[in-house]
Amino acid sequence: MSYAAPVKDLMFNVQHLAQLEQMAVQVPAFEDAGLETAQAVLDECARFHEGVVAPLNRAGDLNPSYFEDGKVVTTPGFKEAFQQFGEGGWQGLQHPAQFGGQGLPKTIGAAVIEILNQSSLSFALCPLLTDGAIEALLTAGSPEQQTTYIPPMVAGTWTGTMNLTEPQAGSDLALVRTRAERQQDGSYKIFGTKIFITYGEHDMAENIVHLVLARAQGAPEGVKGISLFIVPKVLVNADGSLGERNDVHCVSIEHKLGIKASPTAVLQFGDHGGAIGYLVGEENRGLEYMFIMMNAARFAVGVQGVAVAERAYQQAVQYARDRVQSRPVDASASGAVAIIQHPDVQRMLLTMRALTEGCRAMASVTAAAYDLAHHHPDEATRRHNQALYEWLVPLVKGYSTEMSQEVTTLGVQVHGGMGFIEETGAAQHLRDARILTIYEGTTAIQANDLVGRKTARDGGQMALALAEQIAATEAALAQGSDHARAVAARLQAARAAFVGAVQCIASQAKSQPNAVYAASVPYLMLAGNLVAGWQLARSLEVAERELAAGRDAEFMQAKIATVRFYADHILPRTGALRDSIVNGYQGMAAMPLSAF
Amino acid sequence: MSYAAPVKDLMFNVQHLAQLEQMAVQVPAFEDAGLETAQAVLDECARFHEGVVAPLNRAGDLNPSYFEDGKVVTTPGFKEAFQQFGEGGWQGLQHPAQFGGQGLPKTIGAAVIEILNQSSLSFALCPLLTDGAIEALLTAGSPEQQTTYIPPMVAGTWTGTMNLTEPQAGSDLALVRTRAERQQDGSYKIFGTKIFITYGEHDMAENIVHLVLARAQGAPEGVKGISLFIVPKVLVNADGSLGERNDVHCVSIEHKLGIKASPTAVLQFGDHGGAIGYLVGEENRGLEYMFIMMNAARFAVGVQGVAVAERAYQQAVQYARDRVQSRPVDASASGAVAIIQHPDVQRMLLTMRALTEGCRAMASVTAAAYDLAHHHPDEATRRHNQALYEWLVPLVKGYSTEMSQEVTTLGVQVHGGMGFIEETGAAQHLRDARILTIYEGTTAIQANDLVGRKTARDGGQMALALAEQIAATEAALAQGSDHARAVAARLQAARAAFVGAVQCIASQAKSQPNAVYAASVPYLMLAGNLVAGWQLARSLEVAERELAAGRDAEFMQAKIATVRFYADHILPRTGALRDSIVNGYQGMAAMPLSAF
Repeated sequence: MSYAAPVKDLMFNVQHLAQLEQMAVQVPAFEDAGLETAQAVLDECARFHEGVVAPLNRAGDLNPSYFEDGKVVTTPGFKEAFQQFGEGGWQGLQHPAQFGGQGLPKTIGAAVIEILNQSSLSFALCPLLTDGAIEALLTAGSPEQQTTYIPPMVAGTWTGTMNLTEPQAGSDLALVRTRAERQQDGSYKIFGTKIFITYGEHDMAENIVHLVLARAQGAPEGVKGISLFIVPKVLVNADGSLGERNDVHCVSIEHKLGIKASPTAVLQFGDHGGAIGYLVGEENRGLEYMFIMMNAARFAVGVQGVAVAERAYQQAVQYARDRVQSRPVDASASGAVAIIQHPDVQRMLLTMRALTEGCRAMASVTAAAYDLAHHHPDEATRRHNQALYEWLVPLVKGYSTEMSQEVTTLGVQVHGGMGFIEETGAAQHLRDARILTIYEGTTAIQANDLVGRKTARDGGQMALALAEQIAATEAALAQGSDHARAVAARLQAARAAFVGAVQCIASQAKSQPNAVYAASVPYLMLAGNLVAGWQLARSLEVAERELAAGRDAEFMQAKIATVRFYADHILPRTGALRDSIVNGYQGMAAMPLSAF
Repeated sequence: MSYAAPVKDLMFNVQHLAQLEQMAVQVPAFEDAGLETAQAVLDECARFHEGVVAPLNRAGDLNPSYFEDGKVVTTPGFKEAFQQFGEGGWQGLQHPAQFGGQGLPKTIGAAVIEILNQSSLSFALCPLLTDGAIEALLTAGSPEQQTTYIPPMVAGTWTGTMNLTEPQAGSDLALVRTRAERQQDGSYKIFGTKIFITYGEHDMAENIVHLVLARAQGAPEGVKGISLFIVPKVLVNADGSLGERNDVHCVSIEHKLGIKASPTAVLQFGDHGGAIGYLVGEENRGLEYMFIMMNAARFAVGVQGVAVAERAYQQAVQYARDRVQSRPVDASASGAVAIIQHPDVQRMLLTMRALTEGCRAMASVTAAAYDLAHHHPDEATRRHNQALYEWLVPLVKGYSTEMSQEVTTLGVQVHGGMGFIEETGAAQHLRDARILTIYEGTTAIQANDLVGRKTARDGGQMALALAEQIAATEAALAQGSDHARAVAARLQAARAAFVGAVQCIASQAKSQPNAVYAASVPYLMLAGNLVAGWQLARSLEVAERELAAGRDAEFMQAKIATVRFYADHILPRTGALRDSIVNGYQGMAAMPLSAF
């Protein structure tokens, strides 16, 4: 099944929604990172991933990683592809030049990461976790730690992991038990078991830099007693060369529903005297550092949702063009036609496409907010964009990954019976996507963050400010074409539903916490639906302008149709979500726990 | 993971919604099939399936059927369980006493089939297809064919299959190419390839009765030239004993996403001179006979959706009671609690439960309509119920199987990371369920039937008559408790959405076929959502009455809460579906086919 990176749509977002050219003018750090750079990077990115990584995706499902004699053997071809990935500079794309990276904005990086994940979610997880480890050390590592560990990770010769979960501590990190004993030389000895460690052991790199949450002796209970440690798989000598094997060992990997090529390890720390670990930053501030890393990882997982949706969409379109079955319902042909001509198949494909493009657009503006928050010269702009970025991350993670469930299951449905046969490959996308709403914080965890820290805490101010911006887009569209006016009307209804939900949440947050948290996922789905729809509405404005100017007619027509479809079919879901939020608690409260 | 058949809820529906006792009074054929019989049958059914079949479900996933040397070896234990199933009389439950069956109403049979499918979808498919073959022969077989083939199938020593699909003919049976050559003795020789034949080959019975669609020589093109043939795996001698092996052979079985224990065969007919087949009924009327069988099978697949949803629900509840993680949001405990105490987990579990109970209730009244259509002494009652049954079958098949996707994926979500690990078993339900919206006619095929033959053809009369009945339920509830009034209000809004959709479809059916068929699946989902919600609303009335009478307090409280939840969270989805139906075609029409 052929695959082509959607460079044109990614560039559309980078140019018109994230407004990269404007950023290049305003932000000195990115003065060389304008549209020309973005186009060149994405073209090369597409070429490399289409040719080298994408063909490994099926192979990874058919020949997953396996565990043998304490080692993990990855899918044939993964090691070589990862080496080329590192040599091509892809791991260092967003990281600082002083450590060997290219320092490009996240706005471009997010598009690159989407292409990487379209090629193979399983493969992409190794660089994704490594990015997280690099960011954590950039934020909280000592200069020496940075010099020792970051350059080899940027080069792709070492990789990184996040070690949070333990059997009794999943979403609830307060329950972490792994312990750290201070040693004379300032290092620690680490003891404990970590599970669900993505690429926790593999054969694709010379060393693995584990970042591990553990409790130092005497630390307080709960999340306030957690510290962050570097625990390299192989200890590093003073000169940077590799020394002895550390006391951290993989004891098994999981047998999973999907992303089978990506090894998910159980790691045992300290069974032979203690794994040597080095404190990152200060004791008991581990969770804070981990959250920095986690925000980056959450954003990236949201992009994974967009990516797998795109891949499923492309595969479904191809099948729908090839498969001939049944006469058209309008009797426009006397024999059977390609199923893409049947209205319900078009409906499914457009649902997939509209959801995917909406979430992609949302991710693009979120990435731009990150760049402005970190690099804009004006402090107020930085602060505003930091708040915006933090507000949008749970939407990118939560809504995009939930939508990827819908899109990948529709991908199977378009294939009919063939979708259920594993050889077709459609089912792999569904299986792979199924982890996305779970890892890096389930949808409920994202939603609790959105409803609590991001909405209730400021009395809904940030949310209502966004609603104001959406109203401005509606006003602009209301003067436009038939499509523009229809989109404006649906957007207005969706915004009204959102405002009603925000007011309900803000007013009940203290008095009715159970009702508010029962509404958290519907609220996240409403907000995500609306913000993605809003970015598409902005796209419609651009597309009509470009079309009028005679640029890229077929692409712009498809964009307009896709936006209109989203407005007519997806935005109206916000009404039911509003009802769930506002009216939804009494039935729940009436249910005795014992009667479930 | 323990499993218990939901006998109480099944009996609630049989008694209060399907009104079995009234049927036993009015229908002479069922005078002995009152509530006492139903209770006794379901109790025994639960005992047998909980003990014998349900424990095989995981085994079937871990050790699927496999193909070797032309034979299919099924999961260890399946053969023995199927023998006990036959000996216990379960295969003959709904079939006539003259062929060894018990002649019980489908109202009881549907509950039995749900329990069978809760135990194992893969196992259940063998009796399910056998039921279909029996029904086809009861309808269209000659007396001799009935005497030869039905009793061993009723006894469970032989099984049956449906052979429709060919590589080029899936949903579109007009493309069937398998051919039948008339022989001197009145039999036919069959040549061709059939795919996706469930239990097309296996080791659980002495013989397999294949019912095969093929074209006789000189038959017209398209669906009007298709005939139905009996092609036994082993030919049957005049005295009923087994004779020679027929020329139909399994050449492979599929590697599938789910229901792995159920072998899905590719069958080759006539590679060694021709498979001997016997015409059922008249030539060229095969599709008509197959539709009888298919209506029964579609109903049963809808029940499969309810069944796998129930199993996933039970497993999720158990996990949610056991898993301890995080403090409650209302600060009612200082430490971590079982996750069932968290509002979002309750929301997920109630969504699962409400959808499952709603579809179960809908299946129960549909089964009752079948019984009245076939056995009521009054002809007008029969005719009315036949029309009702035919109207409801696409809802039972389409809506219940779509809802099973939502429920099984929520089941995984409740498990968090453990849901993605295959050992947990939660993912199996998701994988197993994924076929249900595809086989026996995809959701779109059901929806085209509903929108075309069942709605547009009579100008929406039947649909609007149902809406009138729903209005009567609302009026009754509007006088009742807070819960009853809230449910009445939501039901009214959903009914209004439905009526709007029906009017739109009826008025555009001829002028805008593409728009109408683009709306077919949203229309099916709207109708299913509403009818299931209506049956739950009727349940609420009953439950409040029973509660007031002091009967079964915990069950009735849970029913009331579940109905209220469905009304607040599920019924409002009808608004967005209405919008899709009424406003949804313009974006689609604007999309150039080449731009997908």
